[in-house]
Amino acid sequence: MNWGTEAQNRLSQIAQCSLNENGVTRFPFTSEHRAALSQIQSWMETAGMTCHMDADGTLIGRLEGTGNGPTFLIGSHQDSVRNGGRYDGIMGVLVGCLALQTLNAEGIALPYPVEVLAFADEEGVRFPTALLGPRALAGTVDPAIFDMKDRDGVTLRDALNDFGGNADRITDLKRNPEDVMGYLEAHIEQGPVLENKDLACGVVTGICGIERNIVTFTGETGHAGTVPMENRKDALVAASGFITHINAAALCHENLLATIGALSLHPNVVNGIPRHVELTLEIRSLKDDDRASFADQARVFGDQIKADQDITFEMTRTYEQPAVPCAEGLLKRLRHAVREVGQDGLDMPSGATHDASAMADLCEITMLFVRCRGGVSHTPKEFASDGDLGETVSATAEFLRQLGDGS
Amino acid sequence: MNWGTEAQNRLSQIAQCSLNENGVTRFPFTSEHRAALSQIQSWMETAGMTCHMDADGTLIGRLEGTGNGPTFLIGSHQDSVRNGGRYDGIMGVLVGCLALQTLNAEGIALPYPVEVLAFADEEGVRFPTALLGPRALAGTVDPAIFDMKDRDGVTLRDALNDFGGNADRITDLKRNPEDVMGYLEAHIEQGPVLENKDLACGVVTGICGIERNIVTFTGETGHAGTVPMENRKDALVAASGFITHINAAALCHENLLATIGALSLHPNVVNGIPRHVELTLEIRSLKDDDRASFADQARVFGDQIKADQDITFEMTRTYEQPAVPCAEGLLKRLRHAVREVGQDGLDMPSGATHDASAMADLCEITMLFVRCRGGVSHTPKEFASDGDLGETVSATAEFLRQLGDGS
Repeated sequence: MNWGTEAQNRLSQIAQCSLNENGVTRFPFTSEHRAALSQIQSWMETAGMTCHMDADGTLIGRLEGTGNGPTFLIGSHQDSVRNGGRYDGIMGVLVGCLALQTLNAEGIALPYPVEVLAFADEEGVRFPTALLGPRALAGTVDPAIFDMKDRDGVTLRDALNDFGGNADRITDLKRNPEDVMGYLEAHIEQGPVLENKDLACGVVTGICGIERNIVTFTGETGHAGTVPMENRKDALVAASGFITHINAAALCHENLLATIGALSLHPNVVNGIPRHVELTLEIRSLKDDDRASFADQARVFGDQIKADQDITFEMTRTYEQPAVPCAEGLLKRLRHAVREVGQDGLDMPSGATHDASAMADLCEITMLFVRCRGGVSHTPKEFASDGDLGETVSATAEFLRQLGDGS
Repeated sequence: MNWGTEAQNRLSQIAQCSLNENGVTRFPFTSEHRAALSQIQSWMETAGMTCHMDADGTLIGRLEGTGNGPTFLIGSHQDSVRNGGRYDGIMGVLVGCLALQTLNAEGIALPYPVEVLAFADEEGVRFPTALLGPRALAGTVDPAIFDMKDRDGVTLRDALNDFGGNADRITDLKRNPEDVMGYLEAHIEQGPVLENKDLACGVVTGICGIERNIVTFTGETGHAGTVPMENRKDALVAASGFITHINAAALCHENLLATIGALSLHPNVVNGIPRHVELTLEIRSLKDDDRASFADQARVFGDQIKADQDITFEMTRTYEQPAVPCAEGLLKRLRHAVREVGQDGLDMPSGATHDASAMADLCEITMLFVRCRGGVSHTPKEFASDGDLGETVSATAEFLRQLGDGS
């Protein structure tokens, strides 16, 4: 079997599990999620795994080893952003399944058990939280998140429970670190580095820290035709100055990214002065200190706008994830496996957070990046070639085989 | 009867005809509109008028005169912005009804017919057009507007026809200018001038011209964690620069107002770079040339952003209304009537457009502004006192009486 073509076909098929036809829109605990799990379960079973869904909505496939001992974990997330692509997340689940199927086809039985994990929610689009699945395994779930609501007012608790999960049983999912060998996640790069260097895949050395903030500006509304310009307290004008400043400041930083991705205003009518603006400020960096000082700088600038324009400014951090290094031991083995299948084995950082970030609280982690066309992700244009998918499956299978050898 | 208290009570009662309880939200051709017309009809009938609703949704009350000849028109609009106040528009309809009721109570029969008009839509919030009622009377309706849609995809045609109007009969509503004496509209000032001068009401000398534009910026989306800052084409960053510039430029102008009141972005998620921003740019000025040159300046700045940031910029004018002067003859009579009831009769311009703007294409117009607390409108805080409402009813009744005298 051509594993690259097989991978591409399966990804095309599961991409149909989407809220609409413009790319993939698959949020956690929806009918699209359920349809996707049905396909993933068949991938797992084809590779010889036994399956069950956990209390947090993670689908787990387990393949016993010829011997006992700790389990090696492979995984990624099933969900997507709104109008995202067909590789981000789901490809990592598929690579795990196909690597085991490859070994099986070659008659290789691993001496240790392997589990493939399809996490429910990594993107954090439906609820203002993320990484429930890996956090449950690591025992780092904050119970307060279950009261968070989506845009329709549905709590995470209700969404999960209605899906067949059980928010009250999350703490039971915590794994004993001694029972886990490590965690591998394959993911599209979502950036241009591998494409620029003409490489199928690369080895990730660490994952950037990330924080998300809600920023609000509140002024005064009024009729757009009667309030003199000099008397206005226009929240959108205040927010625009903030956005311009944040972008300019981030451009001056090395290895730091700052994004205002979402914004809403009130009253949001053509002939009314905006009274209130709420926006998200996301900051990412490999260096946690750089990230913290950038957030401080944003607060100082917001306070300056508050003073200058007599407008209320508030900035609240809603999410934080420190930077995490990949484990040197696994990294060495992965680099070796990638080279064994004929690739360069380039070291690279990850600007994006991944399920692996939260898994690092449980065990050693390692990641494999796969070239994506144009360096784009989170869009229907997202694409990885059959050939690169095949190389990634081979490298993963080789990694697992060598891990069994103890080589 | 204390006409000021009566006015306040009626305005409180009709404010209940609202989509929700946070101020008044009454859009045209809705159940709220229908409920309001029922109350207005009773105001008209109490003042001795006979009523009917026109093909464009305008409720018309008519009081015959003791003699024949052209009709004098009094009116304003029944609709509000989202979460607006209880005076804007509807107060002008009520003042017309109460002025006629006052004259009736005093046993005064006017020698000419009077009509009070409750127009359906002046705010232009539900559909991206406005002033259907007065334009129908003036014969200036562009038939293309009936294809415009609201946020739910309902066309103006369907909304009007379902309400009991008839979009195909709009041209029949055109009045012969020889049959019309003039038009008076009473409206809250929506600004701070009268309050600052401690006056109940003022006489409007002219109405600012206004234009509305849809402005779009289109760049490229991408993952907020993987696209380097220097490679981004962030539509929200582009739009923010535009907003900052427009506000600064308008601050330098005398007698010109520019407002970005509505804005939406796509994909609008915390971890995606904004690809597309659409915003409204409204410009108002007493001088049409100033307004045109300001719009040109906005286009030049947008084109500069387009060139600098490799982002698409488009600006399309969706609405335009030239500045209109009030008629000198009616103005003199109104100033006189206002002084007769003990007010100063201050002359002032109108920064806001009104139904009177479109009525100017049919006949001579005049307007009376009423003090509003804090100069605010388009908010639930909008307020005019019983006393000021009473003065306005008296001044309007006196104006109508003197118009009958030929004095």
